[in-house]
Parts: sequence; C-alpha cells; structure tokens
Amino acid sequence: MVNIPVLKEVTEANTILADYLRSRFTHVLVLNVIASPGAGKTSLLERTITQLNGTLKIAVIEGDPTTSIDAERIAAVGMPVVQINTQGGCHLEARQIQRAVEQLDVADADVLIIENVGNLLCPTEWDLGEDIKVVVASLPEGDDKPLKYPGAFLKAQAAVINKIDLEPYIAAKAATMRENALKINPGLAIFEVSCTTGEGIDVWLDWVRQKLAEKRAAEG
Amino acid sequence: MVNIPVLKEVTEANTILADYLRSRFTHVLVLNVIASPGAGKTSLLERTITQLNGTLKIAVIEGDPTTSIDAERIAAVGMPVVQINTQGGCHLEARQIQRAVEQLDVADADVLIIENVGNLLCPTEWDLGEDIKVVVASLPEGDDKPLKYPGAFLKAQAAVINKIDLEPYIAAKAATMRENALKINPGLAIFEVSCTTGEGIDVWLDWVRQKLAEKRAAEG
Repeated sequence: MVNIPVLKEVTEANTILADYLRSRFTHVLVLNVIASPGAGKTSLLERTITQLNGTLKIAVIEGDPTTSIDAERIAAVGMPVVQINTQGGCHLEARQIQRAVEQLDVADADVLIIENVGNLLCPTEWDLGEDIKVVVASLPEGDDKPLKYPGAFLKAQAAVINKIDLEPYIAAKAATMRENALKINPGLAIFEVSCTTGEGIDVWLDWVRQKLAEKRAAEG
Repeated sequence: MVNIPVLKEVTEANTILADYLRSRFTHVLVLNVIASPGAGKTSLLERTITQLNGTLKIAVIEGDPTTSIDAERIAAVGMPVVQINTQGGCHLEARQIQRAVEQLDVADADVLIIENVGNLLCPTEWDLGEDIKVVVASLPEGDDKPLKYPGAFLKAQAAVINKIDLEPYIAAKAATMRENALKINPGLAIFEVSCTTGEGIDVWLDWVRQKLAEKRAAEG
C-alpha cells in the first residue's frame, strides 16, 4: 500500500489543526455527528435544533458529498448553517471546519453541530476539533452494526439509536443494539430515539445540556 | 491535499489489475455489490444464493472491516465463501480479490458475488474486475439517497431497493427512490425487493440469469 505513510502524514497535520480549533472553541460545545447514509443525522439535528431553540444558540456545519439538501433542511428551521461539499470525498477534515467557522458566528453559539458525511468508517479517523463524537445508528440497519463497524462506536462518547418506532416491524432489537454497542465501548452514553415520533429526544437533549454545562464549568 | 496524486497512482494500478482479473473471469458473471452499512447486502446474497442454488453455482467474497459475521451467514447456507477483512479499510481493492480467488474455485462457478465493505462512497472508485456493479439501498435510509450519494448510482448497472415491506411505516416511497435513481442514471435496472418477505426477488434473479446468458453468448 503506497498511500499509508502519506495518509498518516495528512492525518497528523489534521490532528494538529483540530487541536488548534478545539483550543479556539471555548464556551461552545462541539459535536461531530457520524453515521451511515440514511441513519437519520439530519433528522436528529432538526429535532435537536427545534427543541433547543430559544434556550440555546445552535450553529451547524453540514458535510455532504454533493448536494445541499441537508443544509437546506437545517436552514429551513432558521439556523445558521454552512455547507461543505466534499466533491465525493468520504469524510470531513479539520481544514474544512476551519474555513467553515470563518463564515459562522461560532463565538455567539452555545452548541456547534457538525454533521459529517454519511459514512460509518472514514470519518472516525479525522479529528475535527470536536468535544464529542456522536455516532447515530438506525435500528433498521441491523442491531449487529456496532460489532461490524466498531471504530465509530469505539471513538464516540455517545451513541444515538434512531428509528426505534420501526422495532415492531423488523427483526432488529434496540436492546440488542445497545448491548452490542456497550460490548465495543462500555463507557458509551446510549440514547434510544425516534426522530419521527420524538420519543427519547428529551433524554438526549438533557445530556447535551449537561455536557455543555460541564465544559463551561471546567473552563471557569 | 497531499494524497490525491498518490491515490490516483494507486487507483490506476488497481484498474490495471482489475482489467486483468476481468480477462480471467470467463463464463462467470461477477457482481460487485455496494451499499451503506445495513442496507441488506448480506440478506440479498442469502436470498439470491438460496433461490439460485441447484440451478447455478455461486461463489462469494465477503468484504468487512472487521468481523466474519457476514461470511458465517453465507457459509451457513452452504456456499463457498472467502472473507476479506480490510482492518477498518473503507473499500475492497483488486489485489484483495486476486488473493481471494486463489482460494475459491471460481472456474467452476456461474456467478461470483463480491460483497463490498458497507460504504456508499469509497467502493465506487475501486474496480474489482466485476462485470456489473450493483448498488443496494434500503427504503428506510430515505428516498433521496440517490441524489445525495450519486456516485454509486452513476457507476452501477443495477440498483436494488430493499426493505420495501417497511414502506407503510415510513415517509420514504419506493417510487420516489426509483425516480431519483433514474435522474442520476437513466440506464439503471431497478429492482424493488424485500429480503424479509421475498417480494421482488424473482425479478432480480431473472435479471441475473439473463446477464449471465448475455455474457456467455458474447464469449461464445
């Protein structure tokens, strides 16, 4: 493999820039949301934004390989959003976040949510300066997903199991997915939600509020 | 981006090897199955193998980032299968297929199915010597998937829309997904199936048989 050493250099440079960005992200909680295509990242963002709106200021960076469909969905709920098109690229990188935050009023935000490109593999290797990686997995993908794609679950602090409203119609079980996620990473905070019905969203939002409070308390 | 020229060299070397493999894959129809994690690639393989068994000989190469869960599912239905673990890698490459076929009796097979790593982005750039790329997308992922991840749909000859049995319970519509797929690639053969109920599988299998017959007729 010719490209491994080069990739390592690139990811090292990325990590240095990500650490710099993290040092600048004071008082704002930064979430890097990672999932397969169609797991419901944008729906989770819509729910999160809509329900936190009025109490917390949110800013959003949307990563997508081509379209601006997701950014339009976020803009439609009235949030400041910057779209990054990766031109087919399979993950976001810190240099893209650096450019995006030049166009976003992050200093004024309480929470910055970065929606990564739909991909359960590559984004896990690229630090974006976030405080917390959140992995979203939907139940119809199968409850063995954490075992088959352990990287994202290993590096995340939180896992959101989405589309639990479909549980009666499929073989996958939320309890099994939770169990499998904890096998990979026993420290994971796990949330079972339906972005369609709204079930479980409050518990997730309480956790986000708590993480923001903890960050601010630590910063003084 | 330091790694683009290197990546190009690697993909060019990959394409040369893929062309060589293709020249060796005579009389066997080779399918490269690409999809997001959890779209139902392995379930489609199980259905395909079980229903073709007795009339056609199938061999399978399973790509997975870590586990052998999928290969065990295929072995359980009695098929010759080789597992490639990519060690977290986001796609299969021709050199891995070359090694895998050394361990599989492909000369004796009618159809070789390669199940790529669960990823809708990276695998599209890597030719494996296949005759046909098949993209699998499940309805719960959302019917806008072809627009958001056009690469795989553009390079595929067939798209399998899976989990149509869930249509009554979700907002996504198979007809809309079909329409969006055809916007990206008007030449796509599209199959609406449920690997759970078996609906639509016969039409898909007829197409596979027809493609095998066409290949053999062309080879004489």
